[in-house]
Amino acid sequence: MPTQRYKLTIAYRGTRYHGWQQQPALPSWTGPQPPANEGIPTLQQTLALTIAGVVGHPVDVVGSSRTDAGVHAKGQVAHFDTDQVQIPPDGLRQAVNHRLPPDVLIRKIAAVPDSFDAIFSTIRKRYQYAIWAAAERDPFAPDLSWHRWKPLDIEAMRRAAGHFVGEHDFASFCRPGHGRANTIRTVLHCEVSRRGPLIVIGVEGTGFLWNMVRIMVGTLVEVGWGRYSPENIPGMIAARDRTAAGSTAPPHGLYLQWVKTAVDKIST
Amino acid sequence: MPTQRYKLTIAYRGTRYHGWQQQPALPSWTGPQPPANEGIPTLQQTLALTIAGVVGHPVDVVGSSRTDAGVHAKGQVAHFDTDQVQIPPDGLRQAVNHRLPPDVLIRKIAAVPDSFDAIFSTIRKRYQYAIWAAAERDPFAPDLSWHRWKPLDIEAMRRAAGHFVGEHDFASFCRPGHGRANTIRTVLHCEVSRRGPLIVIGVEGTGFLWNMVRIMVGTLVEVGWGRYSPENIPGMIAARDRTAAGSTAPPHGLYLQWVKTAVDKIST
Repeated sequence: MPTQRYKLTIAYRGTRYHGWQQQPALPSWTGPQPPANEGIPTLQQTLALTIAGVVGHPVDVVGSSRTDAGVHAKGQVAHFDTDQVQIPPDGLRQAVNHRLPPDVLIRKIAAVPDSFDAIFSTIRKRYQYAIWAAAERDPFAPDLSWHRWKPLDIEAMRRAAGHFVGEHDFASFCRPGHGRANTIRTVLHCEVSRRGPLIVIGVEGTGFLWNMVRIMVGTLVEVGWGRYSPENIPGMIAARDRTAAGSTAPPHGLYLQWVKTAVDKIST
Repeated sequence: MPTQRYKLTIAYRGTRYHGWQQQPALPSWTGPQPPANEGIPTLQQTLALTIAGVVGHPVDVVGSSRTDAGVHAKGQVAHFDTDQVQIPPDGLRQAVNHRLPPDVLIRKIAAVPDSFDAIFSTIRKRYQYAIWAAAERDPFAPDLSWHRWKPLDIEAMRRAAGHFVGEHDFASFCRPGHGRANTIRTVLHCEVSRRGPLIVIGVEGTGFLWNMVRIMVGTLVEVGWGRYSPENIPGMIAARDRTAAGSTAPPHGLYLQWVKTAVDKIST
């Protein structure tokens, strides 16, 4: 039977989920492991079971980014295959959205060639990190931004952010146990903007290491407090040592904003 | 021992709570009762227990409005008494906020005379209702607005809203079983505005009946769909019969925006 591959663009609030998928055990890392999944669903499982209920056969949903527990997405990209080629793509999207929980939404669906792969076709990604920079916390969305009540020097954070741009070895900005030999990555943009009580840090790059954006944000906040100066960033990068950089910002301020892929839709 | 009365201004996301307080049984009403509290906290309990933990004695927290389960507040008003008069009010506020759950926040605290009463000193209130008027639902805050995907005629809704302003018998816009003999209320403002995908309906008045704003909103949405014309509103009001008005909008789009009280702070 002929099968068709679909590309999905997905938005979700990560609060209730154990991340995109269960992290595999990391034999190279002897420190604390991510907590085990105790009945908390992953986004991958939720999507795979819901899509299976619509197409009538099990599906495997492959995501571009394995977002951690509590991390949100405005434009995660994933793919799956189905032999239900007679369902119009937008009808499929609406049927799946109707059955998904209220905190997950398929924004777009597109038929793509079999050569498309959500992981290997990804050429560029953008993350954004939301900081609620105000004396009082926000009781309406405490899980959608990181509350920092001490004043932050945005100009210093901007200068520091500029030092991340370019091709660098980001070993200092990577959670140990990542299991990747090559820690060289290219950051294309890193900027800090303010919208009322929200400070938004945007980071764009061709690929990211585990916790890389969260460690960059944790470090930028410590620059904002004056604990580090912007000029300390090049030395932190050069050290290639996690302990040289600042702390890791919590997951709940992080959003996978968009993913750009090389092979795109063949039809919609 | 001398006691001091404090006025609180409180913001909360109502999603996790069984309303401001358990609704009392309504002997005059033989229809379905509100669901029983099965271990779900009320906002009144949550605040009373948290404040008691700071001041070191039990307190009774009296709220201006008994918001229903799922209803939010940006400016609920409440009062309580304490003999811990040596704690500076703002220190008390910060200590309580530090212990409260992330979805409840005391915005202001003020010492008030004993004659102040959150219920009887209230002279004016504003509610706002948020409608997410877009084809797709919002996965980030599904519990903070009511998703209506069919197009709404805002101009018709505005004309209809104007008919609510003034002193009327709102018996048609009141959930049966309210137990109140007098259903005459004065609506001072009722307006419909649009901010991107959000339609916000603001209603200001001297007092409200049970579900009054939610029935007004449900009716305005049916006007927006063309099911009723704006000119049907005066007849609905005149009928003094719940079945003459439209449906009841769900609680999760409703916010108690502010409460104005006659006696205000004596110090802060």
